[in-house]
Amino acid sequence: MNNLNSNFENRKAPKIREINITPIAVVDPPLLNAAGLHAPYALRTIVELITDDNISGISEIPGNISINAALETAKNLILGRDPFQLNAMRRVLEDYFGKETSAQRGDAPWDQRKLVHIFSSIEVACMDIIGKLTGLPVVDLLGGKLRDAVPFSAYLFYKYEGAGGELEFKTDPTATGWPAARQASALNPTEIVAQAKAMCKEFGFQSIKLKGGVFEPRVEVDSIFALRTAFGPDTPLRIDPNALWTVETSIKYGKEMEGYIEYLEDPTRGQKNMATVRKALNIPLATNMCTTSFEEIPDSISFGSEDIILSDHHFWGGLRSSMELTRICQTFGRGLSMHSNSHVGISLAAMVHLGAAIPDFKYALDTHYPWQSDEVIAGGRLKFKDGSVEVPKGPGLGVELDREALARLHQNYLKCGLTKRDDEIEMQKVVPGWKFKTVRW
Amino acid sequence: MNNLNSNFENRKAPKIREINITPIAVVDPPLLNAAGLHAPYALRTIVELITDDNISGISEIPGNISINAALETAKNLILGRDPFQLNAMRRVLEDYFGKETSAQRGDAPWDQRKLVHIFSSIEVACMDIIGKLTGLPVVDLLGGKLRDAVPFSAYLFYKYEGAGGELEFKTDPTATGWPAARQASALNPTEIVAQAKAMCKEFGFQSIKLKGGVFEPRVEVDSIFALRTAFGPDTPLRIDPNALWTVETSIKYGKEMEGYIEYLEDPTRGQKNMATVRKALNIPLATNMCTTSFEEIPDSISFGSEDIILSDHHFWGGLRSSMELTRICQTFGRGLSMHSNSHVGISLAAMVHLGAAIPDFKYALDTHYPWQSDEVIAGGRLKFKDGSVEVPKGPGLGVELDREALARLHQNYLKCGLTKRDDEIEMQKVVPGWKFKTVRW
Repeated sequence: MNNLNSNFENRKAPKIREINITPIAVVDPPLLNAAGLHAPYALRTIVELITDDNISGISEIPGNISINAALETAKNLILGRDPFQLNAMRRVLEDYFGKETSAQRGDAPWDQRKLVHIFSSIEVACMDIIGKLTGLPVVDLLGGKLRDAVPFSAYLFYKYEGAGGELEFKTDPTATGWPAARQASALNPTEIVAQAKAMCKEFGFQSIKLKGGVFEPRVEVDSIFALRTAFGPDTPLRIDPNALWTVETSIKYGKEMEGYIEYLEDPTRGQKNMATVRKALNIPLATNMCTTSFEEIPDSISFGSEDIILSDHHFWGGLRSSMELTRICQTFGRGLSMHSNSHVGISLAAMVHLGAAIPDFKYALDTHYPWQSDEVIAGGRLKFKDGSVEVPKGPGLGVELDREALARLHQNYLKCGLTKRDDEIEMQKVVPGWKFKTVRW
Repeated sequence: MNNLNSNFENRKAPKIREINITPIAVVDPPLLNAAGLHAPYALRTIVELITDDNISGISEIPGNISINAALETAKNLILGRDPFQLNAMRRVLEDYFGKETSAQRGDAPWDQRKLVHIFSSIEVACMDIIGKLTGLPVVDLLGGKLRDAVPFSAYLFYKYEGAGGELEFKTDPTATGWPAARQASALNPTEIVAQAKAMCKEFGFQSIKLKGGVFEPRVEVDSIFALRTAFGPDTPLRIDPNALWTVETSIKYGKEMEGYIEYLEDPTRGQKNMATVRKALNIPLATNMCTTSFEEIPDSISFGSEDIILSDHHFWGGLRSSMELTRICQTFGRGLSMHSNSHVGISLAAMVHLGAAIPDFKYALDTHYPWQSDEVIAGGRLKFKDGSVEVPKGPGLGVELDREALARLHQNYLKCGLTKRDDEIEMQKVVPGWKFKTVRW
């Protein structure tokens, strides 16, 4: 004990001496969703904190020019601080950027709120550093593993033919297997089933989510029934109309899907409308659009707007905050799973560490990862086995930057000319005059 | 990085190889409360976990024979486990002891619920070990310090003359200062003011709580007004009738105290009654009796039963759970402070680490510590400065067992013959036939 104490007295707190903010663009196929069409590249921002002892911690958040500018501003607030002092860092960021209000979140599902994104990028990178300094995987900083591997679901998209990136709507004819299927169009139930089969074959997913809000509900619900016929009753199915349906449409098509789907995600917009739909249906409702922050939890509980919160550590202020959200969900009898945007391996690793620590794990997590082919982590893309990703070995997140890949993907960012996500503009390139609507059917 | 990774691959997870459960009895004066009278000794149980590398982690919980027996049973579930794997340990304890239900909590404020007590004793001791293994104070395992010292309030009690322990209702005439005042009787407003002055002089407390539920409300409310006169408007005052008042009595005397007290603690019994009182009064209500577990939070929110939860890491399942409770309180606009029972320095150290990490700290914490004179930690009793306790230096909790003192206080336990707290029986020794009532006035 005395020895430990004397080490402690002599210990020098680590300091963050460098913060590197690197916007990257990763190839993304022409995926359709309620807000329009994915651009040929998805933007992410890679954050690296380096301590005075040259320990590097990394994180990844949804990228756009305004969050990058805010991160540059945040640098001065964070440089020189001890990575263990996360409560203090959250406080200085709150003081500077203001506490989140739900008004800061817009209608589109990827709408960005500065404080939670910035703090999550700092927190995850600090947790990576803390893990490295203490010799612990991030999951152990969250109370330890309850499972060795974390299950994800197949995330299906309606899409145009095309590979994305420089190929845009063209395909690489030399591709085989999932990379070939990833290029194929999926514009009807038959093509969606083909996409699902190829994706499940490649990754072993045991449950399936269809991103809807693209075609009229009849087509999308028929895709669900086609998936049911193809996969049978043992493969849980979910559909996400991205809040484009009216209450009436949600109830009408929800009734049809009773007994056939695991949950219905954000059929309609707003907590009160969700609550109305929830009362009318015998299907759990999930959300990453109607209840998206701690500030919105009280109304969610009071209205009874959903059964399952699809959390996202980028949007809920980091990994420890996500554990707190988990406790809130447990306390109020809500389920918890995870939402995803187009991402690479750093976000995936963080999701896996968090997913391994969650006590009540009932729903396989969302991930866009199969749709991306680029990677910034050393050793290449993380592997799925039977639809699950093993908790990375090694201290911290257990993944390291591939600096050559990072430089190349940053060049992609500079070359592609995109500075923020705007699926409406991308859609207008294909369908002139197309407009996003908050309610469509 | 490679060096860190190879260390990680070679790392041997620590294992808990020994669990020592030591019941102790510490001298406690004849303090009066709603349930009767404190016995001459207060019982605590000291838990020590020792790893295969001889790292010792300690904790302290309210003691009684049934919790000690349950802890003995829990030994087999915990021995051999990695102290970092707290999520897994909670799960095995939940599986064995059953999840908590509010039905397991009785009417008396110290009523014991096995799972939360046992898990808190394991968790705090593991956090102590984790801190020692990683070279970090426990507060840094909770996100880091937001303050260097944690404020407590003076905790006044009506009491009979007497020192407790072997002296029982007698006093040690050689005592001076606070130890002398601690022996004095306090059975009316004048004596309560004298007690407050002596306690505040010794410890520097800046706010004052009076334990009520002893005399009829008129006497107790007059004590509050006497304190106000003696200390002026800048010293926040609180009173805790321990749920003995009816709704009508709570409103009547609450109205009198509007503008004079910081909060009114548990005036009446049950969440619905508390909600009725809360609506009628312009005083914040605090509780450690009507909302005492995560399971009771939904009704608390739905009824609106209180403004401030007086948490207690022994009753809420440990330090990380308490941080989760803090987030729940933030989310729902509730304040948070801390409840206390008679305790020694291990509990106090844990409270201070937790208190230093809490983001919204508005209310000085409760502590019985001034009423105890015994101590089990090396270096003697923790010091207060201006009513606050500095976060202990050193890794983990920053306090170590004084094994000689532990042995002596365990002998006290064996000699005193007490096996559980029963304030009603103690009271009957003084007032024959005295009966605890759930509602008295």
